[in-house]
Amino acid sequence: MNRKPIVVIAVTVVLILVAVAAVRSFFWKPSDRSEVRAVPEGEYDPAVWGRRYPLEYGSFQKNLEMTASPTDFGGSVKFQHSLRQPENLTNFKGMAFGKDYTEDRGHTYALTDLKESKRITLQSPGACMTCKSAHIIDIYKSQGEAYAKKPLGELFVKMKHSITCANCHDPATMSLRVSNPAFIEAMRKKGIDVAKAPREEMRSYVCGQCHAEYYFEPETTRVVLPWDKGLHPEQVYAFYSGKPGGFEGDWVHPDSQTAMLKAQHPDFEIFSAGAHARAGISCADCHMPYMREQGRKYSSHWVTSPMKHIDASCRRCHPEEAKWLLGRVKTTQKSVWELQHTAGITVSKAHEAVARAAALAETNKGELDKAREYLRKAQWYWDFVAAENSMGFHNPALCLNILGQSIDLAHKAREAAGKASGTTP
Amino acid sequence: MNRKPIVVIAVTVVLILVAVAAVRSFFWKPSDRSEVRAVPEGEYDPAVWGRRYPLEYGSFQKNLEMTASPTDFGGSVKFQHSLRQPENLTNFKGMAFGKDYTEDRGHTYALTDLKESKRITLQSPGACMTCKSAHIIDIYKSQGEAYAKKPLGELFVKMKHSITCANCHDPATMSLRVSNPAFIEAMRKKGIDVAKAPREEMRSYVCGQCHAEYYFEPETTRVVLPWDKGLHPEQVYAFYSGKPGGFEGDWVHPDSQTAMLKAQHPDFEIFSAGAHARAGISCADCHMPYMREQGRKYSSHWVTSPMKHIDASCRRCHPEEAKWLLGRVKTTQKSVWELQHTAGITVSKAHEAVARAAALAETNKGELDKAREYLRKAQWYWDFVAAENSMGFHNPALCLNILGQSIDLAHKAREAAGKASGTTP
Repeated sequence: MNRKPIVVIAVTVVLILVAVAAVRSFFWKPSDRSEVRAVPEGEYDPAVWGRRYPLEYGSFQKNLEMTASPTDFGGSVKFQHSLRQPENLTNFKGMAFGKDYTEDRGHTYALTDLKESKRITLQSPGACMTCKSAHIIDIYKSQGEAYAKKPLGELFVKMKHSITCANCHDPATMSLRVSNPAFIEAMRKKGIDVAKAPREEMRSYVCGQCHAEYYFEPETTRVVLPWDKGLHPEQVYAFYSGKPGGFEGDWVHPDSQTAMLKAQHPDFEIFSAGAHARAGISCADCHMPYMREQGRKYSSHWVTSPMKHIDASCRRCHPEEAKWLLGRVKTTQKSVWELQHTAGITVSKAHEAVARAAALAETNKGELDKAREYLRKAQWYWDFVAAENSMGFHNPALCLNILGQSIDLAHKAREAAGKASGTTP
Repeated sequence: MNRKPIVVIAVTVVLILVAVAAVRSFFWKPSDRSEVRAVPEGEYDPAVWGRRYPLEYGSFQKNLEMTASPTDFGGSVKFQHSLRQPENLTNFKGMAFGKDYTEDRGHTYALTDLKESKRITLQSPGACMTCKSAHIIDIYKSQGEAYAKKPLGELFVKMKHSITCANCHDPATMSLRVSNPAFIEAMRKKGIDVAKAPREEMRSYVCGQCHAEYYFEPETTRVVLPWDKGLHPEQVYAFYSGKPGGFEGDWVHPDSQTAMLKAQHPDFEIFSAGAHARAGISCADCHMPYMREQGRKYSSHWVTSPMKHIDASCRRCHPEEAKWLLGRVKTTQKSVWELQHTAGITVSKAHEAVARAAALAETNKGELDKAREYLRKAQWYWDFVAAENSMGFHNPALCLNILGQSIDLAHKAREAAGKASGTTP
């Protein structure tokens, strides 16, 4: 039997396979979803991750752009909030946000913005860097909660990178992960193990881990999320006010002598009860929509206002034109801004009224304390919306409702101060 | 040639045709969409129309049901609003709505409810019946606007039927038509000829012709819609306040001696600026959804809360489960109700504060008038939502915004009254 044809066929097959492999390797691109391209644990330089995931990295680099949102609210431009909202100067008097309250820029600037902020010094507690850098992962690993009490200056020397890939991704598997220990703890208390959460939930948790209200536990200064009674601003307020031994608040206002609370970007809390969240939409669905480039699908890592890419964000579900959708968002935000501004101004007048009453010898101290309780809650409700990053869009009904309550409470504070001192407003 | 087979074939064909016609006539139903079954002009008995349109009539008869909405707000059950909202008794003191303010029942009861209302007598102006009966068509045709000044009792004798088919349908063509002359006039001023409007617009106009704010023109008592400056409550307020020669308002409150306005179900105004309207959804899309019965499509004429048939109303566009959708509506309405109640109570306290100040000889009258202006506007904003039929759902952002403003204004009224009289609140 002549074996020549079989040899020829075998050689041909081998040559074809080699050629296919060569061609495939030539066209193979790192963004190919078919395999995970692991990064070493502890690698926080986004450029290194970017060599393996160039499309994601390309979009991540857009976080360096400092552009406003087309709605006039939000965006990534640094400016003092008190320019638009001068009532901040009264309402945050005597505390860090009264000195410096800049609009956040993108994630890539978080560490720089922290270092440049007049709110901190090198002696500020290490807890301040919790959500400002990927290095929190190493620092927490080596020091546990102890880092929270270390002087910030001591930790800064260990930190080179801002918020980067590692804050949200496991470098070995690229799975989403939560790195802020405070969020992991708060969710565990709610019966949720974020290490085992489904991916759709994780697409909100990785954002919520930092975009949430928190406080520094007085003893340890570690970051704690005040969610024991629930996420509604009334429940968070009840938690703070009901803490064993009382909770004096974040600072005492120098004029009104009222123990105040400062709300910190409660985006997750406000969003969670809104229509989008309840419909199963995650933060990433709108803020990090799926894009297509070079024939590949990837998640945009330009974490910004969805109004900058309405087609990719809103129009995946809403068939209306982009211009129409933008108009609706603007209408909602204008509604919220009007009440927010009224609430903030009324709160600042309440500080003044309480201060005036406190200065009078004949003022009834018991009645004045009632005024202070109204004032504290009024400012909390106002600040819960003002410190949030969507000008109410994440949950318009909730935001407008608590702003209406804030206006009511702030006026009641003024009236109670007048009653306590026997003066007219 | 034998012609017998041709005759047999011809006879057979004729017999088949006769049989088909007989069967068709046997199964032919009046709801067949293929032809208009005209009704004589001036026929206002819905039962007569119903013989031609049994499916529409069957659903229309459901308006006789007196059932609450599953959201706790709205529905077709007659009850005094002051039971849930006792502030009405103060805020509407000295005028008809302070005596009797019942929740509306269905269209089929409009005439009965008018006759039973303690707000009217047989001497009340004929204008009161404008939106209560189909007979308005004949009455307007024969008397023009003159009917508006006739005593109601004189018109009642000509009225047998409530709001029926003819209010919205041309009996000859079954096309939608507007029968309230006030709406036709108001729309003409806006440059819209409702006789030529597209059907999709008409599916809101036939509702809006009555579900809108109006006033009786002082001289003629004819119904006028106050839309010259726009449909937003602030624009309508500006219209009333800017009328040549001033507009004293609907009545003077006996305690606060303030010239007040009464808002009248501004459903069309609130809805028009909301997301549904702006997305091209008509009133009928949700309140009179398309149904299918006996293999036929028809518009439900059970004009009621869409929450009673979420599948037919909401789920044609929103894929979420009915229970989920109901939950969202309830959440929104609860938000609105809370602010509405707070606003109403604060307004009632403002009436009391202004009344107290007015009773003091030393009160500064100029300052007190400022308090009255705040009070008048505060009540207007509150009432614009309270008198509307959706507990804010038709436009949550607008409703919550103006309720927040109402709360602010009502407190300012109290403060101004205190300042005018030198008293504490």
